[in-house]
Amino acid sequence: MLSLDKVFNAQTVLKDMIRETNLVRAHGIAPECELYLKPENLQFTGSFKIRGAAYKIAMLSDEEKQNGVIACSAGNHAQGVALAATKNGISSLICLPDTAPISKIEATKGFGADVCLVEGCYDDAYQKALELRDEKGYTFVHPFDDENVIAGQGTIALEILSELDSIDAVVVPIGGGGLISGIAYTVKQIRPSVKVYGVQVTGAPSMFNSVKNGGIECLSSVSTIADGIAVKQPGENTFALVNEYVDEVVLVSDDEVASAILALIEKQKMIAEGAGAAAVAAVMTGKLDTKGKRVVAVVSGGNIDVTSLSRVIDRGLRNSGRSSSLLIELIDKPGQLKEISRIIADCGGNVTGVHYEKGDTESVNGCFLRIDMETRDFDHVKLITHSLREAKFKLR
Amino acid sequence: MLSLDKVFNAQTVLKDMIRETNLVRAHGIAPECELYLKPENLQFTGSFKIRGAAYKIAMLSDEEKQNGVIACSAGNHAQGVALAATKNGISSLICLPDTAPISKIEATKGFGADVCLVEGCYDDAYQKALELRDEKGYTFVHPFDDENVIAGQGTIALEILSELDSIDAVVVPIGGGGLISGIAYTVKQIRPSVKVYGVQVTGAPSMFNSVKNGGIECLSSVSTIADGIAVKQPGENTFALVNEYVDEVVLVSDDEVASAILALIEKQKMIAEGAGAAAVAAVMTGKLDTKGKRVVAVVSGGNIDVTSLSRVIDRGLRNSGRSSSLLIELIDKPGQLKEISRIIADCGGNVTGVHYEKGDTESVNGCFLRIDMETRDFDHVKLITHSLREAKFKLR
Repeated sequence: MLSLDKVFNAQTVLKDMIRETNLVRAHGIAPECELYLKPENLQFTGSFKIRGAAYKIAMLSDEEKQNGVIACSAGNHAQGVALAATKNGISSLICLPDTAPISKIEATKGFGADVCLVEGCYDDAYQKALELRDEKGYTFVHPFDDENVIAGQGTIALEILSELDSIDAVVVPIGGGGLISGIAYTVKQIRPSVKVYGVQVTGAPSMFNSVKNGGIECLSSVSTIADGIAVKQPGENTFALVNEYVDEVVLVSDDEVASAILALIEKQKMIAEGAGAAAVAAVMTGKLDTKGKRVVAVVSGGNIDVTSLSRVIDRGLRNSGRSSSLLIELIDKPGQLKEISRIIADCGGNVTGVHYEKGDTESVNGCFLRIDMETRDFDHVKLITHSLREAKFKLR
Repeated sequence: MLSLDKVFNAQTVLKDMIRETNLVRAHGIAPECELYLKPENLQFTGSFKIRGAAYKIAMLSDEEKQNGVIACSAGNHAQGVALAATKNGISSLICLPDTAPISKIEATKGFGADVCLVEGCYDDAYQKALELRDEKGYTFVHPFDDENVIAGQGTIALEILSELDSIDAVVVPIGGGGLISGIAYTVKQIRPSVKVYGVQVTGAPSMFNSVKNGGIECLSSVSTIADGIAVKQPGENTFALVNEYVDEVVLVSDDEVASAILALIEKQKMIAEGAGAAAVAAVMTGKLDTKGKRVVAVVSGGNIDVTSLSRVIDRGLRNSGRSSSLLIELIDKPGQLKEISRIIADCGGNVTGVHYEKGDTESVNGCFLRIDMETRDFDHVKLITHSLREAKFKLR
């Protein structure tokens, strides 16, 4: 059974294994409330996952420790288990699908784990991990549906409550539900008046659906940039805890998550992964009753690969009018690119790409010109398109 | 005269105006030394500049305060002066060249300053600021060559020395030299055995050249992604202090700075601007005697606009083989794109762009195919090009 004693015990046990992350006052991200961030992206391994994994492992019997642990994950849980096992001086084996990014495999090895690459997807790796557990006597470390893992994540709530005297709400991303279960349970035991809100993404609403429909539901597929919370089915323990202790679960879109990642970069100089920015996205978009309140949003992790980051930034720039593309139908005569370039330059736009394309133009000799530009905002884009239309250019 | 008393006094005066930034232990960025970051990118206004500006302003006489202050800057100094003046309850006017990015103008206004846009470049804005000072009686706040500004920056050294008992070296970026002057002076008064190293970029080596040649030199132009330290000429005070107290000044390239920005993102989940990453770049590239040492690198600021950040990331991905482009000469026959796509996919490359281009091919009906891909590393790129060559494709 989960108890407050266990969470306090976890805090003592974890003292030298984790970093106590200090709250950061975030100005300018959500001006309507007093927002603080709990930056678990700055935690060792770049995510909160080490807390639960390390407490679980520390509580194993000597015999279990000697046999070592096994886990299955392509992400933060893998690194958490690996480092936690190494810090406890025991061996760990992590099953990963062979499609996992090289960088994650290397990071897991870097924290001292042995890695077993399994052909196929996550589910195949999971099956393999269970087989190896039965065969070799390893202890399986579940990513969320385990009371010691949940107690470990609950230490985040102890840190928040001891750092801030009065809080109105804590906002937490939900994947399988381990993080929010630990936080909600702890918060409601100590200061029941504090609201606890959960956030999922529209592309993976497993806990949201389950809570709404009053029973555990399993999604057939998930799709989101927030891969850390792309979980098909909540756990039994976590579903029960969320039902009892969480005040509300809301959904945010991938575009809202991308905007939150961008806001954290620009205003806080901080990198969050998709899952890590989900709670901030829910506050930014006003989906929760946070107006005028003192709110803590948990930034659960920062392990976004740079290629994805680059895409999120590009998307964010487009969503805010700071980059844009024009498609212009040209009639074949000399000097047109020159004229278009002049108009864009006069308006202060910065051309970053030019492509001619054949296509279904009115004139047989026509073509399409695609122009990529850096712009200031949507008004700036409007100014440029207006000026081009004034000069009789046909914009698609 | 600069004195240790002044630096300690600045620390007291600044107590409620700045954030005391805690050192961050950086694992994995420079494994050969024990590296700590002093994260002034997390300072209010996103840069250390507020320290010097706020101390300078706090020390003004009542009459000077009543008249208000003026400064000239397109960057961090503008925001530092604006917020410092507002926090001291006095008015500020910032002259900016009208070519300054909208985002910086808005940020400066957001901290409570009035903004005067001056046609032309930085030098024009500077002249205008001096004119307005003489005309209206404002006090001019110099960005670096002022002893109170330097004493304010020196508070960074007090924080570092009180947080870490033993340090071997502190590494500091240099623009005009205010930051390193304050830090070097303070460090050498309190713990003279600690080395202080300065870092400039190859595109703006004004202090480097001046120190080497034994006299202040003025560059005719500067060009670097580290715009925060793109300064043509050191100050008289800062040149003298650097000469006396700094152990060595080294140069890093823009590409090295870009790699450091990327490393800070990936390993520390932290955004630094070019100038802010320069000291880290010097440690990463082994240009200083830091092997086996305990080293603090000052991350001076994080105000990089997202468009530049996106370019730096793209550059970093290319520099590390994680994105690449192929130019393939095609002879005109059906099925070639299909075959090329198959080979790249079999090798695990991810195609992100395809362009056909006419050009100076051997066959009249030939063309060039440009393929953009996401790859794992340079070995992966080699594997793909090798496989394409095996299949008789002609790569440029």
